Amino acid sequence: MKLTDDQVEAYERDGFLLLPAYFSADEVALMRAELPAVFGVESPALIREAGSGVVRGVHGVHESNPVFAALVHQARMVEPARQLLDSDVYVHQFKINAKLALVGDVWEWHQDFLFWHEEDGMPEPRALTIGLFLDDVDEFNGPLMLVPGSHHGDLCEVSRQPDTEGWASTLTSSLKYQVRADTLADAVDGRGIVAPKGPAGSVLIFHSKILHGSAPNMSPRNRTIVLTTYNSVDNALAEVADPRPEFLASRRAVALTPRGAESLAPA
Amino acid sequence: MKLTDDQVEAYERDGFLLLPAYFSADEVALMRAELPAVFGVESPALIREAGSGVVRGVHGVHESNPVFAALVHQARMVEPARQLLDSDVYVHQFKINAKLALVGDVWEWHQDFLFWHEEDGMPEPRALTIGLFLDDVDEFNGPLMLVPGSHHGDLCEVSRQPDTEGWASTLTSSLKYQVRADTLADAVDGRGIVAPKGPAGSVLIFHSKILHGSAPNMSPRNRTIVLTTYNSVDNALAEVADPRPEFLASRRAVALTPRGAESLAPA
Repeated sequence: MKLTDDQVEAYERDGFLLLPAYFSADEVALMRAELPAVFGVESPALIREAGSGVVRGVHGVHESNPVFAALVHQARMVEPARQLLDSDVYVHQFKINAKLALVGDVWEWHQDFLFWHEEDGMPEPRALTIGLFLDDVDEFNGPLMLVPGSHHGDLCEVSRQPDTEGWASTLTSSLKYQVRADTLADAVDGRGIVAPKGPAGSVLIFHSKILHGSAPNMSPRNRTIVLTTYNSVDNALAEVADPRPEFLASRRAVALTPRGAESLAPA
Repeated sequence: MKLTDDQVEAYERDGFLLLPAYFSADEVALMRAELPAVFGVESPALIREAGSGVVRGVHGVHESNPVFAALVHQARMVEPARQLLDSDVYVHQFKINAKLALVGDVWEWHQDFLFWHEEDGMPEPRALTIGLFLDDVDEFNGPLMLVPGSHHGDLCEVSRQPDTEGWASTLTSSLKYQVRADTLADAVDGRGIVAPKGPAGSVLIFHSKILHGSAPNMSPRNRTIVLTTYNSVDNALAEVADPRPEFLASRRAVALTPRGAESLAPA
């Protein structure tokens, strides 16, 4: 369950860590089988792509779906989060990004912590996200792109988009806070961009301050990823004037108890 | 000037051929120096991105700009086209796709010949395009994606978008003729997708029937490509009811006379 010293060092240096084929094909199949149900229920937590109207993603279903509830409690998820954040953790946000074949749209470059700090009152960037690939991720189906090392130092300067009241604009293909082009160029200069790829079942752990985004899915294959954000229980959200819904930013900072792999096995 | 037998065989099998660093850095610099002028003149041949309004591309400037006029006459361009098309050739279409850093938008999957046949009256797919990279092309700045071998066989089935009268809809990020998702999946199945990359000065020769597209430019670096389409003089355009402008589809099927490299040297 524990990451090696080299893995911890790589995460701290680069801001991300790829663990190929971390979950088994059977476990992936179990989770994929839940997608029609979780994408099929209309709710405010279900986000659609502009234009095409297909599902872009769904939030918070770890609260209602037993398979995804089991996932976020897996020791394989919780222990690395505890180790890297050096404390007990809870789920700040849970979402499944569909990025469907040929229609899944762009995620512009952003740093998660900016949104969580500005919108949700998260005090410090003591959070990380574990992205679990439910499909093989390749160069063509919109892999996550990251700027290695960009979690060090200050947050990038952003421009706030006009007409972005309300929380919906924090989830669309045109984001509320946009990283300035010159700032992005500076960040990429000397660091480059990487797009970790791997088979279904791989996980990508990334820092809450790392610059990342993703291109549209140009391939005829889906690129569905489950994104679980763990926050330190010592970093619970402060009060904010107009809090986003609980399914976007949990205010229940209660330490998770890790569960064994058997809890994710088919019933 | 001649392609090798292996190169011809690869082109015929795959429908494309990459020639890395085919033009020199000096020649690339000479052409890049022309971009502000050719992108800076408002005309019907200048296409802008939906939304941002930045330049998407410009057509037909080989007719007015001496550097690009010299390019399309280069023996290094004309001779491979003559060889692969087995006849004299002329320029059917010339465009410069800007694909600017962070704002250059998607080109949906398409087959050029469908447009040239339907819109312009091109009888047979005896045409090819030579794409010349004016910037280094990498995984992140929207490289051309191709389905190897997809130029064999019938054209893919397409859906015609509603409200696409006039020629502008043949140039936008939402194309007039859209390859059906199931058709694309069938085409990719067993063939995969490739995205040839290389330094500025590289050229990518591709068949008029090959399925291709490109993602938006997610990087802070431009991906400007000069696309010269050569058609066989034996394949001149037929009359059509409502022809697109000359800058999109030349009706002057006059054989080009190749010129030496000195014609592209700085004055």
